[in-house]
Amino acid sequence: MKEMTLYSMPSSGNSYKVRLLLALIGRDCAIVDVEDSSPEIAAAKAAGRLPFGKAPVLELADGRLLPESNAILMWLGQGTAFIPGDAYQQAEMLSWMFWEQNQHEGVIAVRGALLFYPSRKTLATPERLAELLERGYGLLQILEDRLAGRDWLVGESLSLADLALYGYTHTAGSRGQYDMSRFPAINRWCDRIAALPGYIGLYD
Amino acid sequence: MKEMTLYSMPSSGNSYKVRLLLALIGRDCAIVDVEDSSPEIAAAKAAGRLPFGKAPVLELADGRLLPESNAILMWLGQGTAFIPGDAYQQAEMLSWMFWEQNQHEGVIAVRGALLFYPSRKTLATPERLAELLERGYGLLQILEDRLAGRDWLVGESLSLADLALYGYTHTAGSRGQYDMSRFPAINRWCDRIAALPGYIGLYD
Repeated sequence: MKEMTLYSMPSSGNSYKVRLLLALIGRDCAIVDVEDSSPEIAAAKAAGRLPFGKAPVLELADGRLLPESNAILMWLGQGTAFIPGDAYQQAEMLSWMFWEQNQHEGVIAVRGALLFYPSRKTLATPERLAELLERGYGLLQILEDRLAGRDWLVGESLSLADLALYGYTHTAGSRGQYDMSRFPAINRWCDRIAALPGYIGLYD
Repeated sequence: MKEMTLYSMPSSGNSYKVRLLLALIGRDCAIVDVEDSSPEIAAAKAAGRLPFGKAPVLELADGRLLPESNAILMWLGQGTAFIPGDAYQQAEMLSWMFWEQNQHEGVIAVRGALLFYPSRKTLATPERLAELLERGYGLLQILEDRLAGRDWLVGESLSLADLALYGYTHTAGSRGQYDMSRFPAINRWCDRIAALPGYIGLYD
């Protein structure tokens, strides 16, 4: 019997975060692919499965829905080592996760999307791309400074904050055309995550 | 002896959320005002008190820092009735809080800021304001639909999700010039929050 279903956009870093956590903790989940601008995502919206109009959404076995990638990480991460036991470290983890959704995603992922999805080409003006490039370098520098001299964003081991930030950071170079040679600590951190047992890539 | 210090931007909904929670739970906290573009916010940044370059930031009694409004709400809310005991309701609460930071704040608060802060006037082009108006109505409709027929966003009582969303929603009309007469359920919910024992307004 299937336990739960993830409505997942294959090309999206937000959906990938959740698939990566599922792989790392070895948890089964049915996946419904709802790619950007596809009939499948339109059908899922029409069926009321995407409460905020976007993926990912986790549907529990009893039909209850949970939208928002980082809220899904928190739900699936309960009882795993990826949520620190220490109260302050847990709060720090949430700080990084809210920063990811409020600052990082709206710049790094957005520039990547403008360059990646043909449907967004008309929005990809030179001015907009330049603004996102400059702001993105500022945000990546915050991440770089944090990771200089430490392996993980919070505490001494991988937490949900690392997975949340990895989702779009690891394609900042390939999709967003940020010059990632400026950020050696980020690159080493990406390598550490890609070496984790059970790791899957964005398109695995 | 002071327990903790909040670096708070007086005019900001993100900072106000935290001050409102402190007032509702009757918890003392020193407040350092760091208004937008002020010498005080520059000094706090230079002193390393604003890790992500913005307010609010909670400084614990031992000097540890916690940025991000909704992470601060989660920290201060521990052990209060504003975090549901039920695991799914807690996850739902976080869904709304991440949605607030990822979708709602970047539209409702941003349009309000463009119209409110003289320093942002040059960014307030008619095209940008019109785009934020249209997207904002879509986001407010999601909130309206959720609140139709229920008193609070999650479960049967006030949670941190209500405070997080109230921060910028309650000035969407006055600052953002959204026509709030379209959203009667939101207006009733705002009235319920303003009637809570201990409530303070944005400038109280």
